[in-house]
Amino acid sequence: MLSLREITHDDLELTMTWRSDPDTYQGFYTQQKPLTWEEHYNWNKNRNKDWRTFVIILNDRRIGVVTIGQLDHWCPEIGFYIGEKSLWGQGYGKKAVQLGLDWIKNYGRDYVHTTVLKSNTRSLRLLKSLGFKALGDARENEIWMQKKL
Amino acid sequence: MLSLREITHDDLELTMTWRSDPDTYQGFYTQQKPLTWEEHYNWNKNRNKDWRTFVIILNDRRIGVVTIGQLDHWCPEIGFYIGEKSLWGQGYGKKAVQLGLDWIKNYGRDYVHTTVLKSNTRSLRLLKSLGFKALGDARENEIWMQKKL
Repeated sequence: MLSLREITHDDLELTMTWRSDPDTYQGFYTQQKPLTWEEHYNWNKNRNKDWRTFVIILNDRRIGVVTIGQLDHWCPEIGFYIGEKSLWGQGYGKKAVQLGLDWIKNYGRDYVHTTVLKSNTRSLRLLKSLGFKALGDARENEIWMQKKL
Repeated sequence: MLSLREITHDDLELTMTWRSDPDTYQGFYTQQKPLTWEEHYNWNKNRNKDWRTFVIILNDRRIGVVTIGQLDHWCPEIGFYIGEKSLWGQGYGKKAVQLGLDWIKNYGRDYVHTTVLKSNTRSLRLLKSLGFKALGDARENEIWMQKKL
């Protein structure tokens, strides 16, 4: 049973640790090394009112993160990772993103976007299987993916 | 001499009047009729901390608006209109957008996007002349335009 709940202060050590694992952050565009506590804490604190960060819960266990941003835009952004590496390749990422898409649709938006490194074949496959389409180039070595909800 | 300054409460009647002119709002994706005061007031009030609204000043006269949004994203959005219709077709829109692009670059962002109705040939021409490229379809009858700064 997979669900999303909003992040709390008590989730910050665990999510920092997940984000500081090179196997995980190699999929992030802007991160090349482990985080400092300040970087991680400010990442969470400085988000504006149109952002949501959710922890992915498998039964009663925290396994990853879904972020949703730009809710003031007609085409918000979704991001995700499974921090618990032992669960990679088992479909939890896809289920978690689907819960995020349901949340965005329920919020009242009809489109969603994300950006993916061209090298991140696993995420590209996951997003295509959920109906995301490549719109074009985003930043260097990155693709803009968009979906109508 | 063209410049931008941040909007104040004293600009709200004028900008509401501009936005309620059908010749102007026919270029807006989401607006089909004149605004109520509440709609206009809330549009200004409810923007989050990653938005800026600027009034375009020609010498000492207010002539239009530039909006910049999603400053928390690597690819913020820019929007604009010349509210003073007697000045259409004289290059002020292009100059005002260029000031907005300079502002975004100076803020620390390397990309910018906007969306344009396919029927809005004047804006499309203006944006292309500033180096915006069509990335792909946005909403219905609308194009996603993007530029590297």
